Amino acid sequence: MTDVKHMKWWGWGVDGVAFHHEDKPGFAPFVKKAVGLDLWTAERTEKPDFADVQVADPIAPAALLAELKTAVGDENVTTDKLDRVVHTFGKSLRDLVRIRALKIDRAPDIVVYPGDEDAVAGVVKAAVAAGAVLIPFGGGSNIAGSLEPHADETRPVISVDLGRLRLLLDIDEDSGLARIQAGALGPDLEAQLAERGWTLGHFPDSFTHSTLGGWIATRSSGMQSDKYGDIADIVRGFRVVRPNGTLVIRPIPSASTGPSVREMVVGSEGRLGIITEATVQVHRIPEKRVIHAYFFKNWNHAIKAMQEISESDAAPSITRVSDGNETGFSLATSKESKGVSKFVQDSLFSFLEGRGWKPGEVCLSFIGFEGSPDHVKRTKAIVDKIVKRNSGLGVGTGPGVLYDQKKFDTPYLRDFLLDMGAAGDVSETAAPWSKLVGVHDAVYAAANAAYEQIGRQGWIMSHLSHSYHSGACLYFTFAFVMGDEDPLGEYDVVKSAIQQAFIDAGGTISHHHGVGLEHAPWLEQDISTEGVAVMSGLFSSADPDGLFNPRKIVV
Amino acid sequence: MTDVKHMKWWGWGVDGVAFHHEDKPGFAPFVKKAVGLDLWTAERTEKPDFADVQVADPIAPAALLAELKTAVGDENVTTDKLDRVVHTFGKSLRDLVRIRALKIDRAPDIVVYPGDEDAVAGVVKAAVAAGAVLIPFGGGSNIAGSLEPHADETRPVISVDLGRLRLLLDIDEDSGLARIQAGALGPDLEAQLAERGWTLGHFPDSFTHSTLGGWIATRSSGMQSDKYGDIADIVRGFRVVRPNGTLVIRPIPSASTGPSVREMVVGSEGRLGIITEATVQVHRIPEKRVIHAYFFKNWNHAIKAMQEISESDAAPSITRVSDGNETGFSLATSKESKGVSKFVQDSLFSFLEGRGWKPGEVCLSFIGFEGSPDHVKRTKAIVDKIVKRNSGLGVGTGPGVLYDQKKFDTPYLRDFLLDMGAAGDVSETAAPWSKLVGVHDAVYAAANAAYEQIGRQGWIMSHLSHSYHSGACLYFTFAFVMGDEDPLGEYDVVKSAIQQAFIDAGGTISHHHGVGLEHAPWLEQDISTEGVAVMSGLFSSADPDGLFNPRKIVV
Repeated sequence: MTDVKHMKWWGWGVDGVAFHHEDKPGFAPFVKKAVGLDLWTAERTEKPDFADVQVADPIAPAALLAELKTAVGDENVTTDKLDRVVHTFGKSLRDLVRIRALKIDRAPDIVVYPGDEDAVAGVVKAAVAAGAVLIPFGGGSNIAGSLEPHADETRPVISVDLGRLRLLLDIDEDSGLARIQAGALGPDLEAQLAERGWTLGHFPDSFTHSTLGGWIATRSSGMQSDKYGDIADIVRGFRVVRPNGTLVIRPIPSASTGPSVREMVVGSEGRLGIITEATVQVHRIPEKRVIHAYFFKNWNHAIKAMQEISESDAAPSITRVSDGNETGFSLATSKESKGVSKFVQDSLFSFLEGRGWKPGEVCLSFIGFEGSPDHVKRTKAIVDKIVKRNSGLGVGTGPGVLYDQKKFDTPYLRDFLLDMGAAGDVSETAAPWSKLVGVHDAVYAAANAAYEQIGRQGWIMSHLSHSYHSGACLYFTFAFVMGDEDPLGEYDVVKSAIQQAFIDAGGTISHHHGVGLEHAPWLEQDISTEGVAVMSGLFSSADPDGLFNPRKIVV
Repeated sequence: MTDVKHMKWWGWGVDGVAFHHEDKPGFAPFVKKAVGLDLWTAERTEKPDFADVQVADPIAPAALLAELKTAVGDENVTTDKLDRVVHTFGKSLRDLVRIRALKIDRAPDIVVYPGDEDAVAGVVKAAVAAGAVLIPFGGGSNIAGSLEPHADETRPVISVDLGRLRLLLDIDEDSGLARIQAGALGPDLEAQLAERGWTLGHFPDSFTHSTLGGWIATRSSGMQSDKYGDIADIVRGFRVVRPNGTLVIRPIPSASTGPSVREMVVGSEGRLGIITEATVQVHRIPEKRVIHAYFFKNWNHAIKAMQEISESDAAPSITRVSDGNETGFSLATSKESKGVSKFVQDSLFSFLEGRGWKPGEVCLSFIGFEGSPDHVKRTKAIVDKIVKRNSGLGVGTGPGVLYDQKKFDTPYLRDFLLDMGAAGDVSETAAPWSKLVGVHDAVYAAANAAYEQIGRQGWIMSHLSHSYHSGACLYFTFAFVMGDEDPLGEYDVVKSAIQQAFIDAGGTISHHHGVGLEHAPWLEQDISTEGVAVMSGLFSSADPDGLFNPRKIVV
C-alpha cells in the first residue's frame, strides 16, 4: 500500500489533534455572545463511523484498471472505500457537512498514486483511451469545490493523488530556483529546503496539508506573500502532463512570448493537465525575521496605515490587520495567562479607553520584517512612523510570536464548532485601496441581512491579509448555528450574499482560494462575459472531451 | 483629417532629427574597426522619394467603407497611400530595409482612427460582417513583425490606429491606479500624469513613439522596471473590444479566478481583440531619483555583482551593465569634451590598467535609486558594498545624467548606419542567473559564426537591462555591412543564429519585444509543443475566423 498520508476523512488535520477551549476562559462567553451557542451545555455529535458512509460501487472497468496498474504499479491503484471517500471532497464547510451526513453522491471510482512523471503520463494515456475523467489531488485542503466529481458523472472518475511526488529535485543556488515535485506538502518541502539553507516563503493557512501543485493549480497566496509574492510570482516553470505530451515551461525570470501559458496553467485546477513538478523561486533563510504587533483605534485608521505602508519605501513581509470583531475574537481565543490578551485586558485597554478608544473597534495588526538586522531596523522605523501618524500603537513582538505559533491551527476550530452544529467558513476577496472600506461595510451588511433572512444569529469578522501597491486582500470569517432541516441551504444564503457583495462593491470573487464549483456562479460578473468566453474556449480547445476535472471554474 | 502624428514612413522618429557623429571623434574610428565601414568616405543613400513607393490598390469594398465611416466618422477612414504605407510595418531592421526598397508586398487596405470605444466596437462589427482582417496599431515602433498583413492575405485588411485615444481618464489617488486610453504615447501620458504629481514609471527604449496599448499587447518592459515592474505587473485591468462585446478586466491587485485572462490579453498582439483603455499602477513622483555609474573589471564580475544586488535588501530602480564591447561603444559615442569618455580616457583607464584591468573587458554599469533621500542613501550603501566586493568602482552620477538624456535616441543611429548600407539590429532574452554568462558566450559565438558564414565583418555587443530574483534580461545589438544582393538573407542568418543560441543556452526568445512573425519560428522550442498547442487553441477558439491579426505569434 501507499505511504501517502491523508487528513481525517471527516474533518481537518490529523487524528488526535483538535481545538479545545478549556484553557481559554474568554472563548465560551465570546461564542455565546456571537452566535448564541453555549459551549458548556451544547450537545456534541460523536465522531462519525466510517462504516456508516454510503458510497456507490465504483465504475472501474477491468481493462482500465489493468492499464492503470501497468502505469503506476499494482499497489498504487485502488478502489478501496476509504481511499475513494478521502478523495471525494476538499475541506470546505459544504464538504464537511456532506461528509458528516454520511451520504456521498459521487465519489471517484479509482484512486491512483503515480510515483513519477512517466507514471502520470501512463495514467493520462489510460484515462484518455477509456474516456475516463481525471481529477488531480494534492493535500485535499481545497475549499472551493475543486476536487469533487459531478454528481451526474457517468464516466469512470480517477483521482490522481500526487502524494508520492514529494522530492526537492535540485536547487540552482546561483539563481535562487528550486525544482520540486508537485505533491510535496508545505512542511515537507520547507524541511528539504531548510536543510540546505533555503526557504520558499509560501505559508498559506493550509500549509501543513497542502501541496506545491495544489498551490499552483489554485493560485494560492501565503502569509508572507507581501515579500515572497503570490504563488503566481514564485513559480517560474513547470511540467504539465497532457494527452499528447508534456507541456514544459522553462524557468525564465520574465518573458514576452505572447499570452502567458504559464499564467494559464496557474489557477487551472487540473483543467489543462496534471502538474508533476515546478521550478520555484527560493530564498536564503533571512538573517532576521520578526513580527511586530500594533493596535489601531479603528478600521479606517488601520486601513489607511496599511495603504501608506504599501506606498512607502518599507517593504514588510507581512501586513495583517484584524477588524474590531476579529480583534475581539483573537483576544477571546488567547490563553489565560499569556500573550496579548492578559496584557491588553489588564492595563492597555483601560489606558486606551481613557484616550477615547472603544474596545469593539480597536484593531490588532501584525507587521512582519525580514532581512539583515539593519534592514529590519530601518524598514520598521518607516512603518513605525506611519503607524504613529495614523494614531496606532506598537506593542512589541510578544503577540506576533504567539500568532506565528498558532497560525496553522485555525481550521481545527471549524470542526470543533461543527460538532455542536455551528457553521464556520471563510470568504476572501481583493480590491483597490479606495474600495476596501466599502467592501468591508458591504460584506457586513450582506451577511447580516442574510442572517436575518434565515432567522439565525450570525457572526462575521475580517482581516486584511496581504497588501499590494494598488490594494489588498480582505479575508472574512463567518459563523452561525445551522438548523437541522436545511443546513447547507442556510449556508448558501450567507455565502452567496457575501460573494455577491464582493462583486457589487468592486472586489474579486477570490483572492487566493480559487473558483472550483463554489465561486463559479460569480465568475462572469467578475471577469465579464467575454472574459469567461475566452477562458471557456481555452478549456474546450485544450480538452475537447472534457476529461480533465470537467466543469470546474467554468461549467 | 486626423491629427494623429506618425513616425517617418521610411525610418525612426520625427523628421529633422537624425544621428550625427561630427561631435563624437571616437565614433568613426570605432565603426571602422567594428564593421569595416568608413563613415568619412562611405556613400550615403538619399532619403527615399515617397512617390517611388509601389503599393497595390486597396481592397476596400464600398459597403465596408460606408460601415466604417458610420462607425468612426468620414474623416477618420482613409485609403490614402501614405496612411497605408505608414501602417504597413513597424521599425525592425527588416521593416526598414523593405520600406527603403520601395516595394510593399501587402499594405493594409484601409486605415481607421476611432475616437472612442463605441467607434472601435463599430469598426469590429463592420469588419466581422465583411470578413475583414483587423490589425491594431499604436505608435508603430514594433520590431517583431507584429503589424504587417500577410503577403498572401486576400481579405480586406483594416489597420485600426488608436492614436486618437490618448487621454488620462481618471486617477484613483488612494489606490495608485490610473485609467488611460490605449493610444496614449509615452510622453503624452507621462505629461498628463506629471501634471497631477504622478508617474507610470514605464520607459522602454521606444518610449517616445510607443503607446500604452502597444506595451500591453507586446509585454513591454521599461528601463525602471526593476522598481515599477514590467507592463504585465503594472496593468491591473483593461477593456478589450471583441466581436460579441467588450472583455472587461476590473482593476484588482491580485486574484484567484482561474487561468489569468488578464495575462492572456497581455502579449496577445491584437489576436484576442482591441484594447481601448487600461487601468495601470501609478506612483507619486519620487522625492529623489539618481543614476550612479560604476565600472567593473570584466563581465563575470559585473554579472556576479548584479546577481548579488538582486538578492540583497536593496531594490534599485535600474540595474544595467554593458559588456566590454558595449562599454567601448558607449565611450566612442560620447561627445568630445563631456561625460564619462573624457574622464575615462584621460585618467581613469590608465589608473585601472595599472591595476591589471583591460580596456576591452571593462564594463560600465548604471544603477538607479529612487525614493526618499534617506532610502536612496541606504540602498546605495548596500549596492556600493556589493560593487566593492566584486572589484567594482563607483564613478558618480555624471555619466548617468548623460545616459538619461540620450537614452531614447539610440534608434536614430540605426537609420544613420543604414544610409551607408550597414545593418544594425537588436535581440534580447532573459535567463536564470546561472545561465547568463553561458547565454552571453553562446550568442557571441553564434553571431561570429554567422558573420563568417555570410562573409561579413560583424559586431556584437550586449548589456544586462533588467534584474529579477532569479535572473536577468540580456540585450544584444549586432551590426554588419550588408551586401547588395540579398541583404535580408544575410540578416536572417545572423538574427536566426542569435535566436537559436538563446534557446540552446537556456534563454527565452524575447524578454520584452514580443513574438510577431519574427520570433514565431522559435516559440515551440521555448514554451514546448504542448505550450504552443494550448496557445493556438486559445486563439482559434477566441477568433475562429482568424480576423484579429491572424497568424501572428503562432501561425
